[in-house]
Amino acid sequence: MDASHVKALLFDVFGTVVDWRTSVIREGEAISHVIGRPLDWGHFADRWRREGYLSHVIRIARGEQPSEKVDVLHRRKLDALLAELNISNLSEEQIAHFNRVWHRLIPWPDSVPGLTRLRRKFLISPLSNGNFALLTNMAKHAGFPWDCIMSSDLFGKFKPNLEIYRDAVQLLGIAPGEAMMVAAHIDDLEAARSAGLRTAYVERPLEFGPDGAREPAPKLPMDISVSSFTDLAERLGV
Amino acid sequence: MDASHVKALLFDVFGTVVDWRTSVIREGEAISHVIGRPLDWGHFADRWRREGYLSHVIRIARGEQPSEKVDVLHRRKLDALLAELNISNLSEEQIAHFNRVWHRLIPWPDSVPGLTRLRRKFLISPLSNGNFALLTNMAKHAGFPWDCIMSSDLFGKFKPNLEIYRDAVQLLGIAPGEAMMVAAHIDDLEAARSAGLRTAYVERPLEFGPDGAREPAPKLPMDISVSSFTDLAERLGV
Repeated sequence: MDASHVKALLFDVFGTVVDWRTSVIREGEAISHVIGRPLDWGHFADRWRREGYLSHVIRIARGEQPSEKVDVLHRRKLDALLAELNISNLSEEQIAHFNRVWHRLIPWPDSVPGLTRLRRKFLISPLSNGNFALLTNMAKHAGFPWDCIMSSDLFGKFKPNLEIYRDAVQLLGIAPGEAMMVAAHIDDLEAARSAGLRTAYVERPLEFGPDGAREPAPKLPMDISVSSFTDLAERLGV
Repeated sequence: MDASHVKALLFDVFGTVVDWRTSVIREGEAISHVIGRPLDWGHFADRWRREGYLSHVIRIARGEQPSEKVDVLHRRKLDALLAELNISNLSEEQIAHFNRVWHRLIPWPDSVPGLTRLRRKFLISPLSNGNFALLTNMAKHAGFPWDCIMSSDLFGKFKPNLEIYRDAVQLLGIAPGEAMMVAAHIDDLEAARSAGLRTAYVERPLEFGPDGAREPAPKLPMDISVSSFTDLAERLGV
């Protein structure tokens, strides 16, 4: 594709830039000794993500549920999961710390090298349903070289609401066609495309684990389809 | 002072991080050949800043004038100054480019080395009356290693309105006392202090040029008073 008009790359974060599942499993295993028994942390991570976050975000994006910070959504589900599993010996400090695992997510191996290359030519920013503090802390922890941070709480809207993509490019002072959304999720990319942005699909087959669900095929063609951020840099000539 | 509770340093930008006056003079001199006659670009810069920006921002902060992007305020005054000086031979492209000199301001010599050190220990962000796109472009141009960008258009408020300081720390998920405002301007620091933030005064005696006005003495004591960002890093133990 001709990317000569693209000035900014906007990245989905959870699953696209960071491997949230492995991060939750690792920190879960580290607190298993406090809990005093083993747990299926992969299953725990999947439920925390799907039931505590994804299902709410879809309703918020549709306007069926009031907007809330992701930190708050995560904490509500964490409390529910701990109660359901009869885990009552974690201190408030330990629970608050575990809830912030989402601020400490580890990148996919190509994320930091790819972003570092892409930043030479493009303005790079997250455009995530995560909240501003979460994304800022995560970037500092993982070393993401973002030029700025754009989050759902800046706009009071969640992806895939089309307005958040329009608000984001307006905040950057560019036209929709001068921005490219980079994501591992088809619904995000199809919405970005409807808002007038260019689209890059990044395959992340391990997002939900080795036996987890895969992304469905896109209904519409994407401008670029790659398997890593270093691939994306190659394709965009950086 | 005891800075052990400080997690984030918020920086005023124009005059504190960047030397706007020298930047405008340099770019002005570069277009003098198009205009066809010499101009007192120092005087031009001072009027652009004071009459095109500062006077409006004070009124916006007080709620006496509607909020507008700084890019728009700058352009209106630039057009007026060019008309007043009978400069009519610049193209729209040249005028739009010159208006964006505020996106390309050059740092004071200690800014990048100081910020790079401070970032190791603190979250660092601008908290500026500049707009988001302007601050993001400026950071990329000058190499400021900000962790995030916070601007007047994010909050729809201008400093020294107390609410913008409160909105900023809330966005970062920290308490006011966990943030320190760093600025060369007393009104900014006194407002930050009233909003509950810590304060660091940085002396920038050349902001308005070698013969320009100096900052008045603060009415209230600042937590820290330094002459450069490297000094500030030293004082904060980084």
